[in-house]
Amino acid sequence: MTLLSDLLAGIFERRPLPGAIRRFASEQDIEDLCRDLLGSHGEISGSSMACRILDLYDDMDDAGKREFFEFLADDMDIDTDGLSTALEAYRETNDKASYNSLMEKAEPLRQELARRLNQVPSGTARLVDMRADLLRFVKEGASFGRVDSDFRHLFQSWFNRGFLVMRPISWRSPAHILEKIIAYEAVHAIESWDDLRSRLQPEDRRCFGFFHPAMPDEPLIFVEVALTKGIAQSIPTLLDANHEPIEAASADTAVFYSISNCQKGLAGISFGNSLIKQVVEELSRTLPQLKTFVTLSPIPNLRRYAKENDCEAQLDDDEKRAQLAAHYLLTAKANNGHAMDPVARFHLNNGALVHDIHANGDPSLKGQEQSGGAMVNYLYDLKKIAENHEAYATQQSVVATPRAQQLARQFTSTAPIEKENS
Amino acid sequence: MTLLSDLLAGIFERRPLPGAIRRFASEQDIEDLCRDLLGSHGEISGSSMACRILDLYDDMDDAGKREFFEFLADDMDIDTDGLSTALEAYRETNDKASYNSLMEKAEPLRQELARRLNQVPSGTARLVDMRADLLRFVKEGASFGRVDSDFRHLFQSWFNRGFLVMRPISWRSPAHILEKIIAYEAVHAIESWDDLRSRLQPEDRRCFGFFHPAMPDEPLIFVEVALTKGIAQSIPTLLDANHEPIEAASADTAVFYSISNCQKGLAGISFGNSLIKQVVEELSRTLPQLKTFVTLSPIPNLRRYAKENDCEAQLDDDEKRAQLAAHYLLTAKANNGHAMDPVARFHLNNGALVHDIHANGDPSLKGQEQSGGAMVNYLYDLKKIAENHEAYATQQSVVATPRAQQLARQFTSTAPIEKENS
Amino acid sequence: MTLLSDLLAGIFERRPLPGAIRRFASEQDIEDLCRDLLGSHGEISGSSMACRILDLYDDMDDAGKREFFEFLADDMDIDTDGLSTALEAYRETNDKASYNSLMEKAEPLRQELARRLNQVPSGTARLVDMRADLLRFVKEGASFGRVDSDFRHLFQSWFNRGFLVMRPISWRSPAHILEKIIAYEAVHAIESWDDLRSRLQPEDRRCFGFFHPAMPDEPLIFVEVALTKGIAQSIPTLLDANHEPIEAASADTAVFYSISNCQKGLAGISFGNSLIKQVVEELSRTLPQLKTFVTLSPIPNLRRYAKENDCEAQLDDDEKRAQLAAHYLLTAKANNGHAMDPVARFHLNNGALVHDIHANGDPSLKGQEQSGGAMVNYLYDLKKIAENHEAYATQQSVVATPRAQQLARQFTSTAPIEKENS
Amino acid sequence: MTLLSDLLAGIFERRPLPGAIRRFASEQDIEDLCRDLLGSHGEISGSSMACRILDLYDDMDDAGKREFFEFLADDMDIDTDGLSTALEAYRETNDKASYNSLMEKAEPLRQELARRLNQVPSGTARLVDMRADLLRFVKEGASFGRVDSDFRHLFQSWFNRGFLVMRPISWRSPAHILEKIIAYEAVHAIESWDDLRSRLQPEDRRCFGFFHPAMPDEPLIFVEVALTKGIAQSIPTLLDANHEPIEAASADTAVFYSISNCQKGLAGISFGNSLIKQVVEELSRTLPQLKTFVTLSPIPNLRRYAKENDCEAQLDDDEKRAQLAAHYLLTAKANNGHAMDPVARFHLNNGALVHDIHANGDPSLKGQEQSGGAMVNYLYDLKKIAENHEAYATQQSVVATPRAQQLARQFTSTAPIEKENS
Repeated sequence: MTLLSDLLAGIFERRPLPGAIRRFASEQDIEDLCRDLLGSHGEISGSSMACRILDLYDDMDDAGKREFFEFLADDMDIDTDGLSTALEAYRETNDKASYNSLMEKAEPLRQELARRLNQVPSGTARLVDMRADLLRFVKEGASFGRVDSDFRHLFQSWFNRGFLVMRPISWRSPAHILEKIIAYEAVHAIESWDDLRSRLQPEDRRCFGFFHPAMPDEPLIFVEVALTKGIAQSIPTLLDANHEPIEAASADTAVFYSISNCQKGLAGISFGNSLIKQVVEELSRTLPQLKTFVTLSPIPNLRRYAKENDCEAQLDDDEKRAQLAAHYLLTAKANNGHAMDPVARFHLNNGALVHDIHANGDPSLKGQEQSGGAMVNYLYDLKKIAENHEAYATQQSVVATPRAQQLARQFTSTAPIEKENS
Repeated sequence: MTLLSDLLAGIFERRPLPGAIRRFASEQDIEDLCRDLLGSHGEISGSSMACRILDLYDDMDDAGKREFFEFLADDMDIDTDGLSTALEAYRETNDKASYNSLMEKAEPLRQELARRLNQVPSGTARLVDMRADLLRFVKEGASFGRVDSDFRHLFQSWFNRGFLVMRPISWRSPAHILEKIIAYEAVHAIESWDDLRSRLQPEDRRCFGFFHPAMPDEPLIFVEVALTKGIAQSIPTLLDANHEPIEAASADTAVFYSISNCQKGLAGISFGNSLIKQVVEELSRTLPQLKTFVTLSPIPNLRRYAKENDCEAQLDDDEKRAQLAAHYLLTAKANNGHAMDPVARFHLNNGALVHDIHANGDPSLKGQEQSGGAMVNYLYDLKKIAENHEAYATQQSVVATPRAQQLARQFTSTAPIEKENS
Repeated sequence: MTLLSDLLAGIFERRPLPGAIRRFASEQDIEDLCRDLLGSHGEISGSSMACRILDLYDDMDDAGKREFFEFLADDMDIDTDGLSTALEAYRETNDKASYNSLMEKAEPLRQELARRLNQVPSGTARLVDMRADLLRFVKEGASFGRVDSDFRHLFQSWFNRGFLVMRPISWRSPAHILEKIIAYEAVHAIESWDDLRSRLQPEDRRCFGFFHPAMPDEPLIFVEVALTKGIAQSIPTLLDANHEPIEAASADTAVFYSISNCQKGLAGISFGNSLIKQVVEELSRTLPQLKTFVTLSPIPNLRRYAKENDCEAQLDDDEKRAQLAAHYLLTAKANNGHAMDPVARFHLNNGALVHDIHANGDPSLKGQEQSGGAMVNYLYDLKKIAENHEAYATQQSVVATPRAQQLARQFTSTAPIEKENS
Repeated sequence: MTLLSDLLAGIFERRPLPGAIRRFASEQDIEDLCRDLLGSHGEISGSSMACRILDLYDDMDDAGKREFFEFLADDMDIDTDGLSTALEAYRETNDKASYNSLMEKAEPLRQELARRLNQVPSGTARLVDMRADLLRFVKEGASFGRVDSDFRHLFQSWFNRGFLVMRPISWRSPAHILEKIIAYEAVHAIESWDDLRSRLQPEDRRCFGFFHPAMPDEPLIFVEVALTKGIAQSIPTLLDANHEPIEAASADTAVFYSISNCQKGLAGISFGNSLIKQVVEELSRTLPQLKTFVTLSPIPNLRRYAKENDCEAQLDDDEKRAQLAAHYLLTAKANNGHAMDPVARFHLNNGALVHDIHANGDPSLKGQEQSGGAMVNYLYDLKKIAENHEAYATQQSVVATPRAQQLARQFTSTAPIEKENS
């Protein structure tokens, strides 16, 4: 990581505007500057102007930012009349020139604006932060939603899997990256640098993240892995700072016990599926004796489901809790037919299957509140994930081990649970 | 460069498809695979399918490739009926859902296909090569031109200035990069590794290139620079392998004597302007005593112009040749009002000015054929380039030094030269 | 650092002994192994045997280590009879063969043993740790002192200035290096990772260390620097976590406020002089506007000196304290004529001069105990250090500014202070 | 390599002497400077003085250098009287102080001088070059031989195996390293960059070298390796630029076909044994399917041996040539009982065994002249090398395969071959 960062750092320092441009730019407001950036000036002084625009944006309060997004929504919107005309012209001539005009009209100006803002070194990160701001306002109306759609479209292209770099994150990683791991861990909070060290330094722990070359100091997503003998059944065992590490070469199982997205501004751009599969490949290559790749995952909405179905009391009994969790994971569906549980949805769509339930996997307060402490292993079997995904994607079939199925069958409820949302 | 390359290499090795997918994929033809990649399978097995498609493409002969481009042009084209319907729907409701539908319809499928092909490690480079193929066929009809427009649109976004990395290229650079410098040098051919060494190793020589993180082994563009006392007037002096190097710290001038684009598949994506300006900034920072940044450039079409204007004989006289060249550079215009000379067009649009003419700058056969050996210095003055560019971009004014203007005024022709294309 | 470490890591993993050697080695005790390592086996299986010896050593308790050092002192000692004979032979023949014999006899076997132990990857670090052990026992007798002299002689050669690498240490450095900075800081303790960040991350802070390529994970010495406007007068101001950073380019002064040796096993190998000078050169190069390079240093033995001279009461008065400190630094001498104060001795011998005294530089408990809180700036003027050093080294002259001299003159004591140790 | 080099480059630029020292230094001759460097000045201005001395040395012609070596031999010699006195003193007191005096006297001053010259960045490389000069003169007398012994002793310590870094050398390596590979290849000359590429770039070729961190741009030794199916029998097959590479993973054998020392100044410091074993380990780790590690080696003195024994005619017959070569390798001994053939001596002492003979391994002129074209495979079996080495080192037993033994037995000579040098 240092490498990549160093590589880019030397090149990508902020440089002051040349005098002429600076004077010129400093007299203009952000909207005029955006218009100029899209015009002829943009060709030669684009980088200076883009810097100035992003600096002006950073200095704004929420009112100013809201106004700027309104400018993007309205003044930089798609020109439907122009598009309609261009479409007619193209349908008539079907030639390259009319096609180019059509394509130009088929995109709102704000997309080209974002591309030009992106030409400055830190541009990508700052645009991601801009979208994070936007997402705070997005419920205020459809026009912000449209702006967000355009950001998302661009980010899908810029954060294409082919541009991402997977990097191991270890106790040898730079501190300024590690402090972000502490900040971004979203599943099992990292309490301190000592806690972090206990997750990264032992020989039987691994962590991997995706990075984008234009944002080398910012992890996009990361996953924490424990190498174990047999499948881990509870989080406290895994996170015990005093656990006796085993030799990596003696482990037979890799447990993915935490996966966290880092960038609010990249909401809706999915990295988790690719990351898990690449980590499985990487670990298989370097530790060929590993046979099993599982998660140890929370079941975030189990209690809510139990409440809604009048069987919350079952969460107080270890045996019944496991059966209830299995029933929930294998049968509870959302409106669209997909798994009700968001974590299940993610892993099932990735092609994992429900492997086992542990009634007391997470005794923490959070774990109790979410699921009475129950946790689940999803199993990643590279040879089966295409098939599993297909079954889930096309028919919403939840693939599960016989053991998980049996647990689910053992579930009985006094109040019969109706088909969800039927 | 090795760094970046190493970083990516470990991650981005080609891995075989998992058995299931491979069997599945190997039974399909490229068009079916493309359709699948755009569908549900693409979510989970996209990387494998993209690899397979690119491998199939690589194995095709020109007939097969032409057929594939026809598939892109026709089957993956924009759906004008769908777009028309979506546009009407959006105009009515103006909401986010209809906007998203509109945006989806406003793009031909082949753009999303290219994005999905790009998810594999070497994808970017292979898509650039694919466009290089396409450009060989593009004159065959408008439909290929439309496909090319879409490639160009995507590459504008992917090769955005903010994603590029400038790297010095030196005799310490990896050989596999240097052999590409030899291959890609387009202005003054590099004859051998010894010739290359004489351009890179002396203390008064520099070379810089742009690279893209997803193509770390491929320079996109590079520029060769000589550090001199005073402004160089001829190429043989600069390229003399036995020249006595001066200390870099004693130079007052940086001469850009060769700039070469490397990737045919990136035609129309302009890097030269950014590269020159970034090199000027880099050299100014590390060698603050440098005062002058000029090119020593060919005048490719001077002889043709002289022929067309019945004054080719002037090319035989040193004095008249310089005057003719100045006249040509300062006054000869193409149809669109821009400078007739393509190299002049590039530098003037970058904000450079015509600084001086050297009648015997390039005695090589190529130099004789192009311009009777005349060469020109374009001057980059960072404080003036915004202004110069503005003058040229809006009024096609060619800024020049008094000396260049005087040379141009001294030009007289027996056959009066008409305004070009009037 | 990561780089260097990575470079070496791939190569320098501990590998198990090949079966034959391992069996062979495991049956021997450490002394036999040492003898074998010095013999014929050593040529081919040296690396395996050296590993085994170092592993055996690591597993020993203090009694075992003491016994091992006795073995080094006695069995691996210089052979004075042999040396005497070889000397006579050489004096007679004066030829190369007898010279080689003389040179071989002129070295105790333990030096060659250490060189052969050093052939394993981590050997250097482990030998440094071995000497740290030895130093705990060294007062037990002359024989251990002789062993230590040989370690020191070897380390002088191995840790030659030409083999050291200076590296910036920043908040971007690897965590496993930074935790050592926390552990090794010897002057102003680093309380936490937050404290560390506040010393490394602000734009007006720097830290540099020396590393040896064979111990890439271990700093040898490091210095912490604050960039300031004007000369800092107190430590709390410098270490204030909430201080408002200034732009590095606006600083005129670099204050070296802490310098710590890291390796007990390298006691007596001096790095500080070289490090300070190299940091001054590095900062001068990258921040040419820096004009002044000073330390802000403790005066560790001032209170003891005051006690011994019955003027401890002067430490209670700000004004008198400064005068006493100046008097002490400028005049108090140890037996050998050098400055009594160890920190003064170090900087004066480096060619620095006494620049100013601050009565309240360090209000911490440690500061109070050492010097009533007084601190001193030593000034490094690269143009004068050769001259200053010469004056100090040959005549023990303490160069000081007029201001420091005046403070010293103002000192008066009721009990006349005798020449130290007279 | 670039990394290491970059690391050091930033730090280790030659810097001009500070004014005072420079004036001072420039007035002195090299001998005075050397004496000063060993005295008090050396502590503070050592680096400047060392630079000056090395610069003065570089500017000398051979006469000057010879004179400088005489200075080292005579003025910087061991003080035998002082040593004798110190030895007596130590024998009496046996204390640490007298031990230190003894140790100081036991070393000639030139060793400490060399250590102090080594403190400048490029010092190590320049001292190695200095010894290369010395070796040209060394036969002129015993006094130069003694100086050389001291250089050798220091270099043994500085180039200790534990300080060396093994690096792969590939077509991705920096050109300034690769041009040295071309220059230093001593066995099968590299004709051109194309020839070099054909040895480095194919998937079934490898090259590794040892580097020292203080000389990052200079390989010390390198070995070229071909990955093959079965054991290669001839050099032209291996070096064929048009050979069809096999997949590395499908090779079962690694053939070491060329090993070259690079630094004349490091003559007598042996790296080959360590390098071969480390390459075997590295290849075994990354390509675990490799089963056989052999050389394909020249037999440099076979023809001379045949001449001396009146059986040169046997070199004209393929069958007899092989039998003669086997006989020679297995039985011909030098005065000291070791193998007569220098290449055999090297590999046998490393613990390799004679595996097979190929009558037509090297049809080149050089090959014909050396051995009538015969070549030999030495086999490295990591499990047996300790044992083989032991047999050779203690009893000069040449271990060989039954096939090699049989070839040797088949040899008959009309003129009975006497025991060599009997």
